[in-house]
Amino acid sequence: MSLAKWPKIDVTADRTYPVFLGSSLEELGEYLHLQFEDVEHILVISHQIVAELYSERLKKGLLNYRVNLLTVPAGETEKSLERLAQLTTAALRCDADRKTLVIALGGGVIGDLAGFFASVFMRGIRLIQVPTTLLAQVDSSIGGKTAVNHPAGKNILGTFYPPLAVWTDFSTLESLPWEEVENGLAESIKHAIIADRSLFEFFENEEKSIKLREKSIWGEMVTRSSAVKVKIVSQDEREQGVRGLLNLGHSFGHALETEMNYRGVTHGQGVSIGIIAATHLAYAKGLMTSSEIDRVKRLLDTYGLPTVIKGQDPEALLQRMQSDKKNQGGRKILILPKGIGQAIVSKECTDLEILAAWKQVIS
Amino acid sequence: MSLAKWPKIDVTADRTYPVFLGSSLEELGEYLHLQFEDVEHILVISHQIVAELYSERLKKGLLNYRVNLLTVPAGETEKSLERLAQLTTAALRCDADRKTLVIALGGGVIGDLAGFFASVFMRGIRLIQVPTTLLAQVDSSIGGKTAVNHPAGKNILGTFYPPLAVWTDFSTLESLPWEEVENGLAESIKHAIIADRSLFEFFENEEKSIKLREKSIWGEMVTRSSAVKVKIVSQDEREQGVRGLLNLGHSFGHALETEMNYRGVTHGQGVSIGIIAATHLAYAKGLMTSSEIDRVKRLLDTYGLPTVIKGQDPEALLQRMQSDKKNQGGRKILILPKGIGQAIVSKECTDLEILAAWKQVIS
Repeated sequence: MSLAKWPKIDVTADRTYPVFLGSSLEELGEYLHLQFEDVEHILVISHQIVAELYSERLKKGLLNYRVNLLTVPAGETEKSLERLAQLTTAALRCDADRKTLVIALGGGVIGDLAGFFASVFMRGIRLIQVPTTLLAQVDSSIGGKTAVNHPAGKNILGTFYPPLAVWTDFSTLESLPWEEVENGLAESIKHAIIADRSLFEFFENEEKSIKLREKSIWGEMVTRSSAVKVKIVSQDEREQGVRGLLNLGHSFGHALETEMNYRGVTHGQGVSIGIIAATHLAYAKGLMTSSEIDRVKRLLDTYGLPTVIKGQDPEALLQRMQSDKKNQGGRKILILPKGIGQAIVSKECTDLEILAAWKQVIS
Repeated sequence: MSLAKWPKIDVTADRTYPVFLGSSLEELGEYLHLQFEDVEHILVISHQIVAELYSERLKKGLLNYRVNLLTVPAGETEKSLERLAQLTTAALRCDADRKTLVIALGGGVIGDLAGFFASVFMRGIRLIQVPTTLLAQVDSSIGGKTAVNHPAGKNILGTFYPPLAVWTDFSTLESLPWEEVENGLAESIKHAIIADRSLFEFFENEEKSIKLREKSIWGEMVTRSSAVKVKIVSQDEREQGVRGLLNLGHSFGHALETEMNYRGVTHGQGVSIGIIAATHLAYAKGLMTSSEIDRVKRLLDTYGLPTVIKGQDPEALLQRMQSDKKNQGGRKILILPKGIGQAIVSKECTDLEILAAWKQVIS
């Protein structure tokens, strides 16, 4: 048997690891068996709902291992130190040890939480990311970022902890609620804006097929979008430079999510509004034309992503940006698109300019 | 100005970093200034009592930086996720960001806690270890291990996060309470037993000078003992092999500390009793002679370290060893001395043998 049958793209950073695109949940066990000799115990960490849908398929391939399934409730608020403590207690009850392998089965929240757990449990145990949402497949499962939230801000505590592999089964997207699809589309479109103009055009041209979830088009969408992420994190795993561009829309989006206490706004919606705010800032700086702003707005709108939000206080949102991880020496670091297909890091945005951008997205 | 004026030994692992031996607290700022260009904000994390003794001396050299001092109460129970959360809140209030540098000023608990904080705050910020106890100077500040405890066991959550440098000022040892000295002596003697027979003899021969805290002898003791640790972690930073030997006495010791809820037994006392338990196991396996056991007992006794403990239940202690991080597939991994100056890793100790070893140290 060989590994060659599973299509993949390699992340080539500190350590090289594969992102398998389009393999099946049932085959993961076969891969583990081929690749890792000394695995005996596996902890599958997942959401209750995701586990109900997919854990049986996954376990079919894991018959040779001692497997424990730990589930957490859904939701961004689950990414907490309290939940980490509970996972730790549960893992110890299952006799997890340094040789245990963690499978993070789920979306972005599970990937972040289970990834953080794996990175700190007994100072780090093995981790495989098995993303089941579009967002996780095209974005969060790739690149090794893990985190939990803190009342003062999102992803304040975390690690860079690349998985041994990312194992992506497209079939998990078939039943994904459209709201979850939107979360992934926001990140995919973000990838297109910052680094791949032709992917942007793909989203413009394939509206119908994407909305109908045509398998081959979705496969292409996930693969092309993942490729952007793989390329960027391969260049800059630790976010010293170019990786920062992936934060387009996120400083605004995180502020909005935190201000609304993760209720009434999804991550994708936050990012979508954040992209538009950043686009207005870019326009003010002469980096975009007004017709480019319209094109971005139109594309997000096409896929049901919001470009404005009601009833928010721009001053409060600005204040929330104060504890953004990217800030340096009290200065806000923002990502601004430069036309479509490129982006830059800007340290030159004043609070007044940021406030003006917020006002453009508050109705 | 050059760095050459400060004597050091380099840890040569994934990343090389210096352990400065015998430099002064006041000079740390000068070193930071020479070595790191973009530091603006420094968080000094310390114990209340240590901070009262030394933070002013440290701050004298840090006049060019924005410095915040965060203190935590003393004690092993402070190594908790709750304390990590509080440190995070406090750090954000001081506008700490990704460029902030953490100075861990204190003993082993502070090094572990502040090191863990630095390793996960915004996915990792810069860290300098400034150990002020004998234990921290000869052992815990070197090698990059950070951790917090979990109700089920010690150091269950943590990271490998080597500091940028270790800055050791011998003068902080002058006022160290003897109980704290004992903690360090237990680790130093452990270093001698596993890797340096001549250091063992140094401890046998220099009893008087060590007890009188003669400066030159203490400098030699810290330097020689640190050198053992530096050598071992340089060979095996991630504890895949030889570094495991540093755990001599610790599986037993941690079990005892956890069982007693960190009250009525210091870390050094736990390690001392643990060394003796391991020595008896080694004797049972034919790795030590009875006169070598006596020699180890005598040396620990010379420095006031206990070799027995009263009123403990050996079965309960055995049970506590179940969640030891070193266990693999339910098997206990123990370090056994092989004569004096060498040690081995053993996976072959049965629960019955371990129980018998516990009984040898319970009076």
